[in-house]
Amino acid sequence: MEARELVDRLLNGERRAVARLLTAVEDGSADRLREVVQLLHPHTGRAQLVGLTGSPGVGKSTLTSALVSHWRREDRRVAVLAVDPSSPFSGGALLGDRIRMQDHVLDDGVFVRSMASRGHLGGLSWATPQALLVLDAAGYDLVVVETVGVGQAEVEIASTADTTVVALAPGMGDGIQAAKAGILEIADVFCVNKADREGAERTVRELREMQRLGHGDWLAPIAATVAVRDEGIAELADAIDRHYRWLADDGRLAQRRLERARLQVREIALEAVRARFATLGDGDLVDELARSVARRETDPYRAADRLLASLEA
Amino acid sequence: MEARELVDRLLNGERRAVARLLTAVEDGSADRLREVVQLLHPHTGRAQLVGLTGSPGVGKSTLTSALVSHWRREDRRVAVLAVDPSSPFSGGALLGDRIRMQDHVLDDGVFVRSMASRGHLGGLSWATPQALLVLDAAGYDLVVVETVGVGQAEVEIASTADTTVVALAPGMGDGIQAAKAGILEIADVFCVNKADREGAERTVRELREMQRLGHGDWLAPIAATVAVRDEGIAELADAIDRHYRWLADDGRLAQRRLERARLQVREIALEAVRARFATLGDGDLVDELARSVARRETDPYRAADRLLASLEA
Repeated sequence: MEARELVDRLLNGERRAVARLLTAVEDGSADRLREVVQLLHPHTGRAQLVGLTGSPGVGKSTLTSALVSHWRREDRRVAVLAVDPSSPFSGGALLGDRIRMQDHVLDDGVFVRSMASRGHLGGLSWATPQALLVLDAAGYDLVVVETVGVGQAEVEIASTADTTVVALAPGMGDGIQAAKAGILEIADVFCVNKADREGAERTVRELREMQRLGHGDWLAPIAATVAVRDEGIAELADAIDRHYRWLADDGRLAQRRLERARLQVREIALEAVRARFATLGDGDLVDELARSVARRETDPYRAADRLLASLEA
Repeated sequence: MEARELVDRLLNGERRAVARLLTAVEDGSADRLREVVQLLHPHTGRAQLVGLTGSPGVGKSTLTSALVSHWRREDRRVAVLAVDPSSPFSGGALLGDRIRMQDHVLDDGVFVRSMASRGHLGGLSWATPQALLVLDAAGYDLVVVETVGVGQAEVEIASTADTTVVALAPGMGDGIQAAKAGILEIADVFCVNKADREGAERTVRELREMQRLGHGDWLAPIAATVAVRDEGIAELADAIDRHYRWLADDGRLAQRRLERARLQVREIALEAVRARFATLGDGDLVDELARSVARRETDPYRAADRLLASLEA
């Protein structure tokens, strides 16, 4: 089907068009991706984007599912994008956890999609921001990006979402201390899940102490939840909405989205450069330069200069 | 000190020059990095590069330390670069583990350096290949890059090293099944450490079975080790050397290094493009384009086109 027709169908609320456009964005050619993004872009910018990240085992999928149920009771439409960083050593459990989301399969106001992260950035996939455009244009009030908190993914989720929720669980070791700097920077809302377990209060207390070390204008609320029993979910959802309203005041949301646009434009341009490097003289130039470097006839910087010069020629 | 003088001192075997050049590569300006790499490059290409990766807790640092002791008994000089992916949620233990390496601090034939991974690639730092050039030029016979097996890092280590060792430990859960595709692709040698623990034989058996599903020309040997007691280390070291000799036959090593040069040239060129994007019209152009995108006056692809056009102007 033509991209234009798919986009029309998506705008008319056809669920299958959403799925097919996500596939086009994830697996399609660069040209197809460009076409889809260009068609969708004018219809985006309305969804509230929530990032949810945390170590394996904190119960992210259960949290997401509980939040979705909560939002549905408020009659808000929700899409979930679960990004699997597909590391050889982590991940794997994610698809199993997805099963919990089956509570929502019959609900037309919920859309769930898992996405592998084959991204050259090692964190979120290159296609993630584009997939968000699809779900945004499809008219979901909330779009949740759920990702395992490993490596680069948290940092990227924070630049992708309006509100980033960092989920922790008690008894996950001395993770908080180790994590200190990183999670303070990215968390807009903390969630201590499995709060019926021993050590939950200590985890909350440690987070509070960390926050005292100084933060920006926003002090991230700490919601204690037991997602499997729906406890604390309303408070968590409220914290997310409060942060969103806070962003909307004083143009902070606009600023955040501007920053996101800046990143996106730069990444698309870099991707185009990368593609050109791969095709320059059918790739022969890169080969020839690499050979000279391997033979020590030239060094990698001079070779890169020549590659850039050929790009501009 | 001038880069040229530091490089001369490094080539004369001055240990402090190695440390200072690593710092220059890690923290210096882009111009400094370029200068250092250009001066060092003609003197590189002799070291045997070994990557060691695996989940937290498999005993990577103990393994590295035991391997270093083994190689020192063979009178081979060894440098170790420990790259910490410094995720907010993982890492942290690495520096503590470094203490084990103190067995070697008085040994002039051993050089150990920890390096944070602030890389835009989310895996190995952008500076890692350059740091390897420093250690290679310094005349170490073996250079080991040790990294936590999380996210993108393993994939990158495999493209950086001549021989990639994937370390596992028994009882680390059903990691092997989940990891299947990924580790088969990158492992040249497997090491099952803590082989005195229950389940070690099963781990070895599972690896063997995975391998039967088909691999390339090289069947990765599986070394069972108890690194804290130096057991199996000679076998592991032998497997690494056998792989290196196998690579050296039939030009496979040259092919691998050519591929590495290709990647390096492309990455340097992309980094240069990235830097130019940041400075175009003092960054004003990117700002202006991002504003148009955020206002939906244009879409990110058209904005990227304009950014690229300005680069070429």
